[in-house]
Amino acid sequence: MTDHQVIFMPSGKRGRIAEGTSVLDAARQLGVDLDSVCGGRGICSKCQVQPGVGAFPKLGLTVAADALSPFNAVEHRYDEKRGLKAGRRLGCQARVQGDVVLDVPPESQVHRQVVRKAASDRPIVMDPATRLHFVTVEEPDMHAPSGDLERLREALSDQWGLDDLTLPLPLLARLQPVLRQGKWQITVAVDHDSDTITGLFPALREAPVLGLAVDLGSTTIAAHLCDLSTGEVRASGGVMNPQIRFGEDLMSRVSYSMMNPGGDAEMTRAVRDALDALAVELAAEAGVPAEDILEAVIVCNPVMHHLLLGVDPVELGQSPFALATSDALRLNASEIELTSVGAAARVYILPCIAGHVGADAAAVALSEAPDQADDLTLIVDVGTNAEIILGNRDRILACSSPTGPAFEGAQISAGQRAAPGAIERVQIDPATREPRFRVIGSDLWSNDPGFAAATAQTGITGICGSGIIEAVAEMRMAGIVDARGLIGSPEQVGTPRCELTGRTHAYLLWQDGDRRIQVTQGDIRAIQLAKSALYAGARLLMDEAGVDHVDRVTLAGAFGAHISPRHAMVLGMIPDAELSKVTSAGNAAGHGARMALCNRGLRAHIETLVRRIEKVETAIAPRFQEHFVAANAIPHATDPFPHLMAELTLPDVSFNTASEGRRRRR
Amino acid sequence: MTDHQVIFMPSGKRGRIAEGTSVLDAARQLGVDLDSVCGGRGICSKCQVQPGVGAFPKLGLTVAADALSPFNAVEHRYDEKRGLKAGRRLGCQARVQGDVVLDVPPESQVHRQVVRKAASDRPIVMDPATRLHFVTVEEPDMHAPSGDLERLREALSDQWGLDDLTLPLPLLARLQPVLRQGKWQITVAVDHDSDTITGLFPALREAPVLGLAVDLGSTTIAAHLCDLSTGEVRASGGVMNPQIRFGEDLMSRVSYSMMNPGGDAEMTRAVRDALDALAVELAAEAGVPAEDILEAVIVCNPVMHHLLLGVDPVELGQSPFALATSDALRLNASEIELTSVGAAARVYILPCIAGHVGADAAAVALSEAPDQADDLTLIVDVGTNAEIILGNRDRILACSSPTGPAFEGAQISAGQRAAPGAIERVQIDPATREPRFRVIGSDLWSNDPGFAAATAQTGITGICGSGIIEAVAEMRMAGIVDARGLIGSPEQVGTPRCELTGRTHAYLLWQDGDRRIQVTQGDIRAIQLAKSALYAGARLLMDEAGVDHVDRVTLAGAFGAHISPRHAMVLGMIPDAELSKVTSAGNAAGHGARMALCNRGLRAHIETLVRRIEKVETAIAPRFQEHFVAANAIPHATDPFPHLMAELTLPDVSFNTASEGRRRRR
Repeated sequence: MTDHQVIFMPSGKRGRIAEGTSVLDAARQLGVDLDSVCGGRGICSKCQVQPGVGAFPKLGLTVAADALSPFNAVEHRYDEKRGLKAGRRLGCQARVQGDVVLDVPPESQVHRQVVRKAASDRPIVMDPATRLHFVTVEEPDMHAPSGDLERLREALSDQWGLDDLTLPLPLLARLQPVLRQGKWQITVAVDHDSDTITGLFPALREAPVLGLAVDLGSTTIAAHLCDLSTGEVRASGGVMNPQIRFGEDLMSRVSYSMMNPGGDAEMTRAVRDALDALAVELAAEAGVPAEDILEAVIVCNPVMHHLLLGVDPVELGQSPFALATSDALRLNASEIELTSVGAAARVYILPCIAGHVGADAAAVALSEAPDQADDLTLIVDVGTNAEIILGNRDRILACSSPTGPAFEGAQISAGQRAAPGAIERVQIDPATREPRFRVIGSDLWSNDPGFAAATAQTGITGICGSGIIEAVAEMRMAGIVDARGLIGSPEQVGTPRCELTGRTHAYLLWQDGDRRIQVTQGDIRAIQLAKSALYAGARLLMDEAGVDHVDRVTLAGAFGAHISPRHAMVLGMIPDAELSKVTSAGNAAGHGARMALCNRGLRAHIETLVRRIEKVETAIAPRFQEHFVAANAIPHATDPFPHLMAELTLPDVSFNTASEGRRRRR
Repeated sequence: MTDHQVIFMPSGKRGRIAEGTSVLDAARQLGVDLDSVCGGRGICSKCQVQPGVGAFPKLGLTVAADALSPFNAVEHRYDEKRGLKAGRRLGCQARVQGDVVLDVPPESQVHRQVVRKAASDRPIVMDPATRLHFVTVEEPDMHAPSGDLERLREALSDQWGLDDLTLPLPLLARLQPVLRQGKWQITVAVDHDSDTITGLFPALREAPVLGLAVDLGSTTIAAHLCDLSTGEVRASGGVMNPQIRFGEDLMSRVSYSMMNPGGDAEMTRAVRDALDALAVELAAEAGVPAEDILEAVIVCNPVMHHLLLGVDPVELGQSPFALATSDALRLNASEIELTSVGAAARVYILPCIAGHVGADAAAVALSEAPDQADDLTLIVDVGTNAEIILGNRDRILACSSPTGPAFEGAQISAGQRAAPGAIERVQIDPATREPRFRVIGSDLWSNDPGFAAATAQTGITGICGSGIIEAVAEMRMAGIVDARGLIGSPEQVGTPRCELTGRTHAYLLWQDGDRRIQVTQGDIRAIQLAKSALYAGARLLMDEAGVDHVDRVTLAGAFGAHISPRHAMVLGMIPDAELSKVTSAGNAAGHGARMALCNRGLRAHIETLVRRIEKVETAIAPRFQEHFVAANAIPHATDPFPHLMAELTLPDVSFNTASEGRRRRR
């Protein structure tokens, strides 16, 4: 039997293929990634290839004009109806007749790379759990009266080698009309992660099916709606977590549940409804029906995790912080009452690392991949509860640290959430101690011309997390605050902006008539508590790892993206490192969710990785307390911060006063 | 190492067992069926055995008094707290020290036979899908923070070899409190048919868990509530199928669905609610919480099947009568909205045989087991739609036949459902043509002394299915009706009870003042149509099987139990057979459901058997129509009925009249 040399590009996979074999079959024989939804019927066009012609000296091959069979009737019909790009062939129709080089364009690859929008986006290679399969089903026969489902199963087995698929009842109810509407041709969406049929569409489904990547935070629920074939983000958005009305932070929600019988069920209801509404909103934004959402991946902290699942989080509020379940979960969307998405849609929830380190931290680990780095990397996801991961390819450790809500603007006198009008950047002139600042919504500094006009709409409403961090760090750099965190008097500092308020001083950042934004001594104390907790957590992991410096620091989370590395280090939020190696990862948890949505292999990967992560419990580590106390100073009582000190010198001031002393003894 | 001869009775299994082995372990080594819930901790007492002492010449063994280790502390404690029958030992505590004969009492066997209440009950050997497993779970540890579920899974794997069990979300929500209530000891109910955890109970569960065997009929929903360990029926009962308000028979319900958008959903709602209410009612009767019901097995006809599943039955109303699904189904009870039973209860629905031959017919085949008989057996389940099965161990065929509701008393002038006051038995004196009868609720005949007093409460309200069958058959035997089904005139028959009503005659069965119960010509015609359909179906199967007589006829269904074989044969409802071999099987479908509930091996068996059954579609068989026409005569126009004729002679009368002739031509 004659055979020919066939080379697929860009993979370079090659082999000898029998004359007359279709290009699609040749690809399968050689293990080349060539897509097909219709299974070789020439209707889906997913298997398009571009044959080369002429000499390919590097490949040692010359391709004759008739290396593939001529355009056949199926291709002509497809070209007429839908148009086929010049030079393209349908892989299932074109047959090998000679040595040939075939280019597989990206859109014909299942495992294509997702197109990146920004350079900082981490690459994702598609390998979705959800795939579409087109089949022709045998019509019913009274003499062999098997059910429509059984004949569909036969077709999936014969035509795709798919066996033992589950069809949930809500789809069973649709099977008969869909089969008849499609004249016994049907496209079946299969979740290959659970061998479940998640969608039924008459004839060939041409529109994409969609998946939702959800970062379910205590404060915000953010989601990306993605095309499950290309990975493209079709819509993104977020809503406030409505559980906020039951408690600002996680522990107050746990308390709510403990104090109010049925309180957990109320919170479960609230978060499920919000998630469902967000799905509807994003689908509307993308102009698709919400029921085309066949899959969701959710990451969240353990308390959100339990409340979403309908599990009372009470055990998470007390030692030993036992999770009801820690492994990854594969559920029907209906089990968590997501009713707007596809009736048989599936949900994947990443594993939790520990009672305080959730699936969101697992998603950060997936996204930031410290396990694939040589550099010892510290990853800090700043929030009410900070998740901290330290490691490299040899070893990974994780803990959480109760930073409290100060970094989110709570417990700060003029604090507010990051919203237009909030001060987000602060600079203080070290000579004059005069401040300038920027507010969210404008790129101008407060001393730039036009600032008043630019901010007239939003006003200047308060100070958000990144603003307070910069303000305190700048105050320390300008000698307004000493290493112990005390604000000096007007005389000590030499500026009337230091104002006596009660027994302590406050620094006036801005005023307009009666409206004033100050940084008070109380604000400094709140920030010190928060940053000490964060630093102590990081140090605890470093102790466990037996190191006293890290190569790289990654600030994760939406908030992390807005923190200035330099200011964070002056404040002593994070351990000393080369400033150029302190970077922001944006919403790494959300990105990790998207990765697990687009690539099911990554689910197995993170499940294995989580088992490898060494969990460190801050609540019971005696050294945590020591680290916490030492980290109270700005930047630190004992740690030298050599990289930081190579770049700047902090004023050696001290403002100890009797009044502050009394206050601290109370 | 010393070993000893150990013989278990009644199985007779024997082998040499190492000195010091516990009796429970010895039983496992020899494959002896010895129960245990607690896994050998000496607390469940399920593994009790009775050791013999002295000489057992037939077994060739003498048992010394110290053949087992002495009563230990665990046994003493159990005996004090709960009492151990004299001579009994806990198999997990007693250790082998010498040759021994051990009797395993029935209550210590998992695969025990269910105690029969009546001689006609078919035996069931227990092998339930649901089993209880007691485990001790490791307490949570902050340093190895796996979830409670993951530690439960470990315990089930280590202590019972059970892996990859699913825990549904509603039970996950209960896991943490149950584990803490039981102080890390927990009894887990596992459905081994789906590897699902279906119940969680603190510490050792002593009360039984329960299962529901449901026969979901078009008219009545009947169920048995069974102990899943002993098979004992704890409560039985039935309710009307509330779908009756949407249509009396199956096809009128299909029509309702076709004519009323959303009508199928209404009927689904109604039947699910009724089933749920029945579960609550039976649980109350048995004095147990409904949530102790962890399993249900349901049998029903295809239309009920689809409506229960939430599938529009419209395809079942038109050729080719395609089922949405034919295979057996394993579901969560919550999927069909059974909310009163255990939150993670499971449902098993038997496979359907064909579009008109449902899971109820499969249950009849399971119960009556024609596949295990040498005799060629015809099984007839009489209802609005009759299911007919013919076969023996070589071959089995099945069909359904649209008999209509006449046998249930509908379409009969004085017809009613079988209820107190309904005439159920009829005798007519062949000499005087005077009738006597019995009504449901009394054992007296209408001419017995005391009949009036005995029936004063119920009254005489109408005639039920078995009553009309006997009435028509007796009329034929007494020469009141001829072979063509015509009622003679008073003159022809010689009794004034034959009354002219319009153009035809009616036979007066009873009157009291104005109230009269007659058998009209229309009644005879309705019964003829019904019995012809039944007979034609049976004959069609006989044709397919290539036989012209059957060895045995079984009348199944609640109604079948009340039919007199002799009268059924005079009427020509069933083919001729030896009268002694025409028997009733009672509610065979319900019994089949109970078998599949108590023994999971029988599920696999019926699933295989159903695939072997040859389906015959009456609606498209040309010979069905021929058989139907020939079967119109009483008993039959051409078939000779030799066994029947050997026992009696039917009067050779003929009442053809012009009026009847005209009527038939209309």
